[in-house]
Amino acid sequence: MTASPNASAFRTRIDEQLSSFVADQRARLVDLGPDLEPFVDAAATFVSGGKRLRPQFCYAGWLVAGGDPDETGILAAAASFEWLQASALAHDDLMDGSDTRRGKPSIHRDFEARHSNGNSVGDAAQFGRSVALLLGDLMLSWSEEMFRNCALVNVDAGAIYLDLCKTEVVAGQYLDVVGQTRPEFSVADAMRVVRFKSAKYTIERPLHVGAALAGADDELLAILSAFGLPLGEAFQLRDDMLGVFGDPEVTGKPAGDDLREGKRTVLIARTAERTDDAGRELLRRGLGNGEYIAQLRELIISTGADAAVEEDIASLEREAEAALATLGKSAQFHLRDLMLKATRRNH
Amino acid sequence: MTASPNASAFRTRIDEQLSSFVADQRARLVDLGPDLEPFVDAAATFVSGGKRLRPQFCYAGWLVAGGDPDETGILAAAASFEWLQASALAHDDLMDGSDTRRGKPSIHRDFEARHSNGNSVGDAAQFGRSVALLLGDLMLSWSEEMFRNCALVNVDAGAIYLDLCKTEVVAGQYLDVVGQTRPEFSVADAMRVVRFKSAKYTIERPLHVGAALAGADDELLAILSAFGLPLGEAFQLRDDMLGVFGDPEVTGKPAGDDLREGKRTVLIARTAERTDDAGRELLRRGLGNGEYIAQLRELIISTGADAAVEEDIASLEREAEAALATLGKSAQFHLRDLMLKATRRNH
Repeated sequence: MTASPNASAFRTRIDEQLSSFVADQRARLVDLGPDLEPFVDAAATFVSGGKRLRPQFCYAGWLVAGGDPDETGILAAAASFEWLQASALAHDDLMDGSDTRRGKPSIHRDFEARHSNGNSVGDAAQFGRSVALLLGDLMLSWSEEMFRNCALVNVDAGAIYLDLCKTEVVAGQYLDVVGQTRPEFSVADAMRVVRFKSAKYTIERPLHVGAALAGADDELLAILSAFGLPLGEAFQLRDDMLGVFGDPEVTGKPAGDDLREGKRTVLIARTAERTDDAGRELLRRGLGNGEYIAQLRELIISTGADAAVEEDIASLEREAEAALATLGKSAQFHLRDLMLKATRRNH
Repeated sequence: MTASPNASAFRTRIDEQLSSFVADQRARLVDLGPDLEPFVDAAATFVSGGKRLRPQFCYAGWLVAGGDPDETGILAAAASFEWLQASALAHDDLMDGSDTRRGKPSIHRDFEARHSNGNSVGDAAQFGRSVALLLGDLMLSWSEEMFRNCALVNVDAGAIYLDLCKTEVVAGQYLDVVGQTRPEFSVADAMRVVRFKSAKYTIERPLHVGAALAGADDELLAILSAFGLPLGEAFQLRDDMLGVFGDPEVTGKPAGDDLREGKRTVLIARTAERTDDAGRELLRRGLGNGEYIAQLRELIISTGADAAVEEDIASLEREAEAALATLGKSAQFHLRDLMLKATRRNH
């Protein structure tokens, strides 16, 4: 049995993979024109943040399926998820018009500011949006390129799950965007978005990719779904709770950010199904309006929606735990730590 | 020697590949939720237009390198370029705020209208933009997925050139976007954008991908560059001419569309370097303003910029022709027809 990788050592190894990949791309791109330097640098900076959650699950899937812990190819494959995530975040910020990401300006705002500060003509905001769009496209292509060049023998088997992952996350985002246009929305609708946009994308598919790269059979992949899907749902519900009640000092996001943005989360759906006409009116008026944060928090607590979501999380954790118990001791060891990190966190 | 494929028969075979791919994706996605149906349908509709230029060059590269004309895997690989192109067009229309594409509403306008016509809440324009962004991302992932599943033995060799192609086209678009923010721009700047955004993307790299899939050696790949780059540049210069002087009945775009959009083309750069202060002032004021189309056309003609660009095209064609002459008779046969289609066209 191999030791579970120390989180910070793993992070360093993932960062090394990303740096080395971006250095190669940079050499090639700057050759095409020096103007491309700030563009590549923005990609490198943007990917340097984050929790490396998807690489961790991918690597855990590899270990659980009996992959060699010292194989470097799996690190490249695992790290490639960070380009996919960076692309999704750049495009998310663009769709939401978000000003910041992890306490720094979002890409479109960053390049808008560079335009305004320089001797530039044309619309600065439009320039910023174009650059964020293109950088997201570039990073999406890079995720595939990095993954495919991992040089593992089972790369095609892993790619099946990566392809599913990429289609599912866009489908989940689309369902989310469509959901926002509906006057009413149910807990079931909100949970479906959670499943595709978060649970599959963040946990189940990275586990599958790693496991398939190590030659996992269908039985193991099914157990990883039984473990990863409820865990991923619990992970997102924890995120929803932090988006409303999280400490800005710890989360790095403004207090009540999800309420200000008007996100249609499971927490809000649970509130809507438990409140009266006055409460639903407050939700209609207050969601997406920063002035109503305190009132909305009160409504969520008074209806018991927060407690209900905590119960959802606990029940999903038990489900994941039950799936975990069917695996061997070594597999349990690799996955339990990650499981706790995903749901018992404050940021 | 095999016969050059009849263009319309080839088109049908490419369309079949795309339809079969999208049918598989549709079955999978609609399973995730019926709301996804219009999303997949929009992708299928959007990819159904177009000249299939990149698939044609990819297939020609395959034939020139000795690939079997009856192999179906090359059709899947060639068709995958259409998803890349559809993604680029969806995102281009978003960046440019274009209302139409091939005479139909652009994706963001299409979904904006669906939002407005339905019982929807929120900002219709923002909804349309989000859908176009997500659909572009999905189609970009699909291009890779379709390519990788072509089941040709040399798929990794082909992928090297596809990866280059995808990075180069985004780099070219970025250089274009940056160029638009500069008060001045030169013929050299404009030609660099042409090289990456068009010549490599549309002709050189599709040829390389097809040839590499058939096991081409470095010598053949170098000849295909010597042929494809000047041809691709000529292709884009022809596009620039049509964007100013093309017949709307034939091009499907409004007359003088490039002038209305204020595109910084080689044709405009050639005009700027040949005119006087008054002409440059007209360019500054008139580019991007539909009221100045007639005046700008007159300026382009009076400076002789149009004739200069026609000379550029002729000279690039001679360059491509010289490279072609170094290939065998069969290769010349496969490429000459495509060459004429790319530069001697009216749409």
